[in-house]
Amino acid sequence: MSGVNLPAVSERVQSLHAQMTLDEKLAQLVGYWVDQGDEVVAPMAGEMVTSTSYDDATAHGIGHLTRVYGTRPVDPVERAQWLWSEQRRLREQSRLGIGAIVHEECLTGLAAWKAATLPTPLAWGAAFDPQLTEQVGAAIGRSMQALGIHQGLAPVLDVVTDPRWGRVDECIAEDPYVVGTIGTSYVRGLQSAGVHATLKHFAGYSASQAGRNHAPVHMGRRRLQDLVLPPFEMAVRDGGVRSVMNSYAEIDGVPVASNPELLTELLREEWGFDGTVVADYFAVAFLHALHGVASDLGEAAALALRAGIDVELPTGDAFVAPLRERLASHPEELADVDRAVLRVLSQKEELGLLDEDLSSPPTSIDLDTAELRELARRAAEESLVLLSNDGMLPLQAPARIAVLGPNADAAEALMGCYSFANHVLAHHPGVPLGFDIPTIAESLRSAFPQATITVERGCDVEDPDTAGIEAAVAAAAASEVAVLVVGDRAGLFGRGTVGEGNDVDDLELPGVQRRLVEAVVATGTPTVVVVVSGRPYAIGWMLDGPSAAGAVVQAFFPGEEGGSAIARVIAGASAPSGRLPVSLPRSAGAQPYTYLHPVLGGPTEITSADNSPVRPFGFGLTYTTFEHAELTVSDAGTDGTITAAVRVSNTGDRTGTDVVQLYARDLVASVTRPVAQLVAYQRVTVEPGESVTVTFQVPSSRLAFTGRDGRRIVEPGAVELWVGPSCAQRDTEARIELTGAVHALTVDSPRMATATVAHLVSEPR
Amino acid sequence: MSGVNLPAVSERVQSLHAQMTLDEKLAQLVGYWVDQGDEVVAPMAGEMVTSTSYDDATAHGIGHLTRVYGTRPVDPVERAQWLWSEQRRLREQSRLGIGAIVHEECLTGLAAWKAATLPTPLAWGAAFDPQLTEQVGAAIGRSMQALGIHQGLAPVLDVVTDPRWGRVDECIAEDPYVVGTIGTSYVRGLQSAGVHATLKHFAGYSASQAGRNHAPVHMGRRRLQDLVLPPFEMAVRDGGVRSVMNSYAEIDGVPVASNPELLTELLREEWGFDGTVVADYFAVAFLHALHGVASDLGEAAALALRAGIDVELPTGDAFVAPLRERLASHPEELADVDRAVLRVLSQKEELGLLDEDLSSPPTSIDLDTAELRELARRAAEESLVLLSNDGMLPLQAPARIAVLGPNADAAEALMGCYSFANHVLAHHPGVPLGFDIPTIAESLRSAFPQATITVERGCDVEDPDTAGIEAAVAAAAASEVAVLVVGDRAGLFGRGTVGEGNDVDDLELPGVQRRLVEAVVATGTPTVVVVVSGRPYAIGWMLDGPSAAGAVVQAFFPGEEGGSAIARVIAGASAPSGRLPVSLPRSAGAQPYTYLHPVLGGPTEITSADNSPVRPFGFGLTYTTFEHAELTVSDAGTDGTITAAVRVSNTGDRTGTDVVQLYARDLVASVTRPVAQLVAYQRVTVEPGESVTVTFQVPSSRLAFTGRDGRRIVEPGAVELWVGPSCAQRDTEARIELTGAVHALTVDSPRMATATVAHLVSEPR
Repeated sequence: MSGVNLPAVSERVQSLHAQMTLDEKLAQLVGYWVDQGDEVVAPMAGEMVTSTSYDDATAHGIGHLTRVYGTRPVDPVERAQWLWSEQRRLREQSRLGIGAIVHEECLTGLAAWKAATLPTPLAWGAAFDPQLTEQVGAAIGRSMQALGIHQGLAPVLDVVTDPRWGRVDECIAEDPYVVGTIGTSYVRGLQSAGVHATLKHFAGYSASQAGRNHAPVHMGRRRLQDLVLPPFEMAVRDGGVRSVMNSYAEIDGVPVASNPELLTELLREEWGFDGTVVADYFAVAFLHALHGVASDLGEAAALALRAGIDVELPTGDAFVAPLRERLASHPEELADVDRAVLRVLSQKEELGLLDEDLSSPPTSIDLDTAELRELARRAAEESLVLLSNDGMLPLQAPARIAVLGPNADAAEALMGCYSFANHVLAHHPGVPLGFDIPTIAESLRSAFPQATITVERGCDVEDPDTAGIEAAVAAAAASEVAVLVVGDRAGLFGRGTVGEGNDVDDLELPGVQRRLVEAVVATGTPTVVVVVSGRPYAIGWMLDGPSAAGAVVQAFFPGEEGGSAIARVIAGASAPSGRLPVSLPRSAGAQPYTYLHPVLGGPTEITSADNSPVRPFGFGLTYTTFEHAELTVSDAGTDGTITAAVRVSNTGDRTGTDVVQLYARDLVASVTRPVAQLVAYQRVTVEPGESVTVTFQVPSSRLAFTGRDGRRIVEPGAVELWVGPSCAQRDTEARIELTGAVHALTVDSPRMATATVAHLVSEPR
Repeated sequence: MSGVNLPAVSERVQSLHAQMTLDEKLAQLVGYWVDQGDEVVAPMAGEMVTSTSYDDATAHGIGHLTRVYGTRPVDPVERAQWLWSEQRRLREQSRLGIGAIVHEECLTGLAAWKAATLPTPLAWGAAFDPQLTEQVGAAIGRSMQALGIHQGLAPVLDVVTDPRWGRVDECIAEDPYVVGTIGTSYVRGLQSAGVHATLKHFAGYSASQAGRNHAPVHMGRRRLQDLVLPPFEMAVRDGGVRSVMNSYAEIDGVPVASNPELLTELLREEWGFDGTVVADYFAVAFLHALHGVASDLGEAAALALRAGIDVELPTGDAFVAPLRERLASHPEELADVDRAVLRVLSQKEELGLLDEDLSSPPTSIDLDTAELRELARRAAEESLVLLSNDGMLPLQAPARIAVLGPNADAAEALMGCYSFANHVLAHHPGVPLGFDIPTIAESLRSAFPQATITVERGCDVEDPDTAGIEAAVAAAAASEVAVLVVGDRAGLFGRGTVGEGNDVDDLELPGVQRRLVEAVVATGTPTVVVVVSGRPYAIGWMLDGPSAAGAVVQAFFPGEEGGSAIARVIAGASAPSGRLPVSLPRSAGAQPYTYLHPVLGGPTEITSADNSPVRPFGFGLTYTTFEHAELTVSDAGTDGTITAAVRVSNTGDRTGTDVVQLYARDLVASVTRPVAQLVAYQRVTVEPGESVTVTFQVPSSRLAFTGRDGRRIVEPGAVELWVGPSCAQRDTEARIELTGAVHALTVDSPRMATATVAHLVSEPR
């Protein structure tokens, strides 16, 4: 069968497959986009919009139903009624009785009307709390499961390499270990509810030239393997993820959708993945239409199947008919069709879609439960990063507060690009959100009930009009303190300032917001600036220098409870505990940048261009201070485990949460290695005057890299380890010698570090 | 011998080698930096400065004498006397009587006191004139040969990929074919004089992250092979170059100085190179000191020798003793030493350094001959790119001209980073240049003897002081026209605005020059802006929009006759004929960028970030207009030759020179291919009303690329061809079908296109 290895499947699947006509097979490999209409929710959706009727598209069954709940604001209960009846129709009236996989977006919560909007993934990264992310994933998954949704198109495991890219807010961090640990937790959570997670975007999407969406990725195999792929490997091997979505990218000239080395050899044969690979929307068609590696749509489909894509999404319009025509003259490619069909049928078997369905649709549902609200609040609170503070925070019960800025009193400012509530506000004005998203201004009113609060927008996020700045300045001048909220508006393809398609070549705050901040700061009224954004901006000027604000808080789209979380932190009801999951950039012209650079990737005397971030990866203040001391480390073999223990003391007078960060540097290796690499981390709350010992068990394989011959190895030799408040500072350090021979990693090599926290007896200081 | 293939050498070399002690061998693998002192002419030169005396360093002979003429302003004739006597001493008094190779920089002319300063390589690219570059190389070579110099450290064949990089002015173009054809011509010219050329920097140096000097290069094998390596291959195979210098870069984690795949397998075994590979200054030591791939200097030396470096430059201080110590415990590495020594001895044999030297040093020498002056003038004139012109150019004998700007009356503004005259001005104030470099202001006085000329600097290139702008504005307001000259100052490592180490994260004109231009343009006085720079800047605002100047001329450091060339073009004594060898960038944040992008590398509806240049590669106006019509093309096999003929008509009323550019696009291929690729070009001068037919013979192998399996192939299929005034416009187009099987390229596959020009009978229009 042309060298195609058919997957091992059950007898039931085999027998089902044996009965299928070609039309029935092809129908299983595509989706139908319910309700797509003229909604623009994917690149080129306009050109690619479906022209097939639902009845025609499902005449031979259908692989997926695309975004049943997530395209328009449809009532979930009514839509569930429809969905259950359609699934029944497919099961009872189609020849083979195979139900459809229902997939939805679920990055910041289920992307459906009235469903909770949780923080954006950059906020998950800022929280450095995999356990919490797992709970979030589980809660989202339960909502989805109740609505008959089988597959969620999350998480995004693209490692941030360039903040110019518009989709940075969908990513978790610039460190692959942080992405891997937190992303895998999300997978575990979602799948614990019976919903298949989908890793996006396998692989390389975030590393495009100049941060432009879909632009070519220039990267060698080593960088791909050491920087980009580890989170995917962790989510496959440790997380048992059930689905993977290809990246639109071409890497070194080869579009991933046509790359069997990645989609089959690495993902399946090396990592052992046995789920389905779904196409990013229209990615198969793009092999012809954009990449030019296929002469027509039929060849595009054949190339994608051969590479290892199983399902073209969102629809089959550019897939089924062209492929059917091609197969007439290329019968040898039928084996690739069969391989994909067997995988889809196995996924359906696993999801119960081949069994009789005795369930009933929900008659009522709350997609914004108290549990989700509480998770949204915790996730938001843990993610707030205090970048600077001259002591003005927390605010001491001021009598007059000016609450300023375009994001101060705007619910939409709190939500990331894939949030459905954001979509409703942008595209369906007049349709109620269905639940409450308190703005920052509203939450500050609650947090400071005694204060007189004046709200002024000052300016728009994007619009260049400066007319409102004067009123904002006047309000600041008349107040004891100002809370000035600036940042982004998430959107798609030119609507908004960040989000899919909204790439930039400039990292200044959008519009005239910098002028607003400078004008308000110049009043002399103590000002806290809150940046609510989907990417890190070049805001060094508000941290240091003549326009420095009294305090600056970075919030990555914090979701429906973000306003409340920010108000609580400003009022001191909680303390900030987030850390930068991405470097705070110096400028757009200094990009791309990653803290994981070798010596010559950082500031040196042989270049005049300073690319160092204005605040480093891992940085974040709180309302107390921490001391890290007495790092002790055990020597280890190249195939062993390093034990590292550090004493963490709260040296201030408030309870605080530290993110203890253990970094390493391999001093000499056969290839260049980064000057700092996070090898383990742990959130820990410490009372004032208390000390704890955090002990990390770090597998030596955390220091693995791709050697000269392409194998993943751990080399013996000296390694520096340290703990500090960010990647850029060493509070306490030690050095070990990895002993033994060069260790080539195997499937069973551990990938994650573990931590234990021992609370010591409080000591007087 | 540990798998080391010793090179085939003559009996004389073999016998000499057999007599050598280890000390004598090691001495041949390094240089001695005569006169280095505290001159900073290489990165880390401060730390790496030699501490060995000349007598000690040459006690066992010496491989190279480093920059004998080129470090300080020494009188060439006096220094030649010294050099001849030292060579005699080495030949007569060292045990084996082996003379030293004398190497010098020669990128913009011999880098020595009183030697002509020719245009910088970006200007060679702008001239699109390989024949002229060959003449320049030959003239430079003859000067060098007369001074006893054997090897020149030029040309630089790095393909421009990012204008933020400080060394862009040393590069020829962003198109590898232009770099390859012009660079190979320089090699042929220099070597025709008996001086060995040295290809810099093999490979990848220019593609560093964010354009920062020495920063890591992220690139896959296909991009390396298809974009970066072709010029080197052409200069090796077609140009027969005798030496190659490694790139400082690490590519995908592997420093080139330690990479045998590039330095040995590709360069020697595949391309057949049999000369010497010399280290970029201190590059061997950097393997330990910066890259961290060697645990000490001895291991660094061993790694470099094993990879294929033969000679560490500029000195042996960090090489000889550490390697000697290492060899005591690693005797198997002696074979690598022997291999390098045999290559150096062969090079010396070829250069006559093993023969008796009957020559005498020159008793007088003119390093700025009339021939060099004339070549400098032609090269400068051909390189000037007219970017915009509302009709004000050429100037019509104005009575009052304001000549403004920091580069208007500054000789140093005309010279590139590696010019010795520039070095003298910057580091040896008071020492006369030894020859005349007329400034633009001086040349304008000569060109417009009747005009009243007022000169005002307005501002500095770098200094932020704006006090002088008022006087410049007043001078403009009081004049009929203004000629405003802005741009760069070449320098090294923080001195100057462009040149080695002077990388930027912003592509605005340095300092306050934009304010000066805007203020002068705002006077309403017709203004021609001349940008004299070493990199393309983001100057779209002076080409279009409210601050558009009447005309803009781009001059890449045009050398000693640059002032005169610019004045002649402004006065209309000659017409501009240069074309942009690099895209004129939109912004620093849109970088990196190359016109050789696939569909998704250019503007698309799926990104909001416009990275398109404000003027495209190949663009340039002149004082007449050209029509390109009637492109005819022959079909060809994948291993054949495409014949393309186009009619070029001068449709204006002045003589003009066109650079006829033939572009191609391979519509469907197994990997993504650029939307435009220059496949042939030809300068041609056409009289008004005249037409010529330019016929190109383009080997199909010009359309080769690295296929999925890593082999260089030509695929059958449809190819679009067109001729236009830049890469971005099609004046006349045609389509061919490459027939035959996939053609894998062999050593003998041709690499260059040829052109013939037939002048047609003038036709009345």
